[in-house]
Amino acid sequence: MRCDVVAVGTELLLGQIVDTNSSYLGEQLALRGIDSLLQVKVGDNLHRMVAVLRARLEEADAVIVCGGLGPTHDDITREAIAEVMGVRLEEDAEVAERIIAMFESRGRRMPMNNLRQAMVPVGATVIAQTMGTAPGLICPVGGDGTSSDDGDDGGGGGKVIYAVPGVPYELHDMVERAVLPDLARRAGLESVIASRVIKTWGDSESGINERLDDIIAELEGADGPTLAFLASGWDGLKIRLTVRAADAETAEDQLATWERRVVERLGSIVFGCDDETMESVVLGLLRRRGLRLALAESVTGGLVAGRLTDVAGSSDVLVGSIVSYAGSVKRDMLGVPEGPVVSAEAATAMADNVRGVLGADVGLALTGVAGPAEQDGLPPGTLWVGVAIGDEVESHLVRLPGDRLRMRQFSVITALDALRRRLLTIPEPVPPTDR
Amino acid sequence: MRCDVVAVGTELLLGQIVDTNSSYLGEQLALRGIDSLLQVKVGDNLHRMVAVLRARLEEADAVIVCGGLGPTHDDITREAIAEVMGVRLEEDAEVAERIIAMFESRGRRMPMNNLRQAMVPVGATVIAQTMGTAPGLICPVGGDGTSSDDGDDGGGGGKVIYAVPGVPYELHDMVERAVLPDLARRAGLESVIASRVIKTWGDSESGINERLDDIIAELEGADGPTLAFLASGWDGLKIRLTVRAADAETAEDQLATWERRVVERLGSIVFGCDDETMESVVLGLLRRRGLRLALAESVTGGLVAGRLTDVAGSSDVLVGSIVSYAGSVKRDMLGVPEGPVVSAEAATAMADNVRGVLGADVGLALTGVAGPAEQDGLPPGTLWVGVAIGDEVESHLVRLPGDRLRMRQFSVITALDALRRRLLTIPEPVPPTDR
Repeated sequence: MRCDVVAVGTELLLGQIVDTNSSYLGEQLALRGIDSLLQVKVGDNLHRMVAVLRARLEEADAVIVCGGLGPTHDDITREAIAEVMGVRLEEDAEVAERIIAMFESRGRRMPMNNLRQAMVPVGATVIAQTMGTAPGLICPVGGDGTSSDDGDDGGGGGKVIYAVPGVPYELHDMVERAVLPDLARRAGLESVIASRVIKTWGDSESGINERLDDIIAELEGADGPTLAFLASGWDGLKIRLTVRAADAETAEDQLATWERRVVERLGSIVFGCDDETMESVVLGLLRRRGLRLALAESVTGGLVAGRLTDVAGSSDVLVGSIVSYAGSVKRDMLGVPEGPVVSAEAATAMADNVRGVLGADVGLALTGVAGPAEQDGLPPGTLWVGVAIGDEVESHLVRLPGDRLRMRQFSVITALDALRRRLLTIPEPVPPTDR
Repeated sequence: MRCDVVAVGTELLLGQIVDTNSSYLGEQLALRGIDSLLQVKVGDNLHRMVAVLRARLEEADAVIVCGGLGPTHDDITREAIAEVMGVRLEEDAEVAERIIAMFESRGRRMPMNNLRQAMVPVGATVIAQTMGTAPGLICPVGGDGTSSDDGDDGGGGGKVIYAVPGVPYELHDMVERAVLPDLARRAGLESVIASRVIKTWGDSESGINERLDDIIAELEGADGPTLAFLASGWDGLKIRLTVRAADAETAEDQLATWERRVVERLGSIVFGCDDETMESVVLGLLRRRGLRLALAESVTGGLVAGRLTDVAGSSDVLVGSIVSYAGSVKRDMLGVPEGPVVSAEAATAMADNVRGVLGADVGLALTGVAGPAEQDGLPPGTLWVGVAIGDEVESHLVRLPGDRLRMRQFSVITALDALRRRLLTIPEPVPPTDR
């Protein structure tokens, strides 16, 4: 079963609104094992909408059209579908009543153009509107491009157009309530789709690809899960395994098997899976060891703290941060010795001393050159990370790519990863057994 | 001139990544008067990519393809374009050298598959890569669907495919540097398009719309600039004026006239224009008054400092920040009195005292409830901002909408705006005249 998506609206083509609806639909369709192989954005133009719908129906079994169902003159999805079906529009009395009732219940005068939304292509089924004024439509289209008159819209090679409003929450409601169940029924769906995201930091996409070369070849040969890379900036480099199977248990088994192989192969560059993030992983490692963290940030200017505090409940682990942007703060508050402030000595002093200043067990420090200019003869991209736990204070030099923004973002995940690796060398306390 | 857009990547169809590239391109093309009438997402599948490219070239004069230029096995945009051009791929020695040099400069081993990125369809022009490893491509396609051999890729009814990487910042760079200038040349664009973005904080889109009601009506009647609203989260609410005129001077005159009217009408909610940001404006106000800033952040956990230090050269004004996430840090370092830490008293103490701790003239403090849970009986969205300059320490209570992420982001711009308004009441020193 293949279901393509058409997002309607000149504002989408002009970049005034980003089309997130087709991404949502793509995800929902994939989860149900329905292929969505082409997704198109088209403007509010009848001729082009009709052409796009016809082209999509030639290749796909079904098409979901989002948007263009509102009351104004440029909302012409109904007209385009009627033309593709080869039928006319008729007012649906029930839909009209609901629209009138909605305005009445809000105590608002109804502009008459709202009744345009009650016009329905002959032969279409209405998806009742519950949140907005526009209803959705299920529109059977015969295999020959005209309406199927056999009354059996699920068989006989007939195809289908679903029309749903472009407002995301109205769309989600109708898609879940009516479109996906109808699609599943037509597809006679039996298989399930499941996926797992493995998150890494510390190697490039091509490097990981090379490391996994034989596993990827095996996957392709074995008709196993598909493997895809998703470079996600300072969220890390993600690897997604997706599998289709007869039932959820088989899918989960397959995923678990291949996940284990990938994770074993990649080793310590894997920091998490699915909903885990670098910050949630680091906070968890600290929490389980009963350690509290203090930060000393120069080059990142507060971004590491900002990222950790994105996580609700981080305050039990993160004490705070000294953003020591001026040299005076580094020296006076953090005891950085005279000399260059982007150096092993500075990173070490910052990590070591911030613990005492803020009252924490672990210190993490960053000092570097974000650019665009050099600093003390060091090029942009230079980063020193300091990690202090107990008596051990270590520092790492890293060279990062990218402009000022990217360099600072990569510094955040690089420093958190250094802390993660250090924490992994500290055994987790064994929880007391119940006696 | 019509330029359609094809975004490549199975991850886009699966909804793992939202395609923002085609929105950006649609906006840039519209600004230059180039129509983008169909935008398509297609997966990493050679057959379908070739079919989509051919279909787009039938209707449009040019196509921009985003993504699929990386080093891995599923990056096949180069192959698809070569097939459409009817040519083979050849390694470009210069591109290969740049890739090798990039890895060397980062001190990293280059996986050999990176050289796939140096493969170029015969007859294509390379857009040199400067930020990532993949170059872009300008690929002339004859009107008959094959390569044009006349060496004049701008004429003779020939069309063109531009290929750019899917990573947004690499794409933006290549599109601005090479694709848009090449398109403008091919289109023989004579009118110029110019725009001005007016940035505001402190009123809703519908509120501003109402304030500008008559000006908008006049603009529409006068065939003057078009006016569009762009809600941009914690970058503020933007109003864009766009004008097309015979020459740059006329365009600039028109923009200046209407900008003045809009800015006068909106008054103090306007904080900047075009490349100015809230952070650059605040840093400028401080710098011109010779004042140095210290921050005390609780609810934003370092995001205000992170934002100000996004601006290169901010270290002459921003001394640093105390991210006082734990209550102990607020009390011990910043002298916050006993009692609730989300309060006027806490905000005032934090703003007042952080100046002494870090050695600055101005203190800005934020304490609030990001959620999801209440704190001390206060709902998520509660924000206290403290501003301390000289003997005057003031505090403001603000209620912000949104989830944890949004609340924190809105807190950042709200606090910076409070500081901006306070600074505007302090006269700027008159620079000494030369004698």
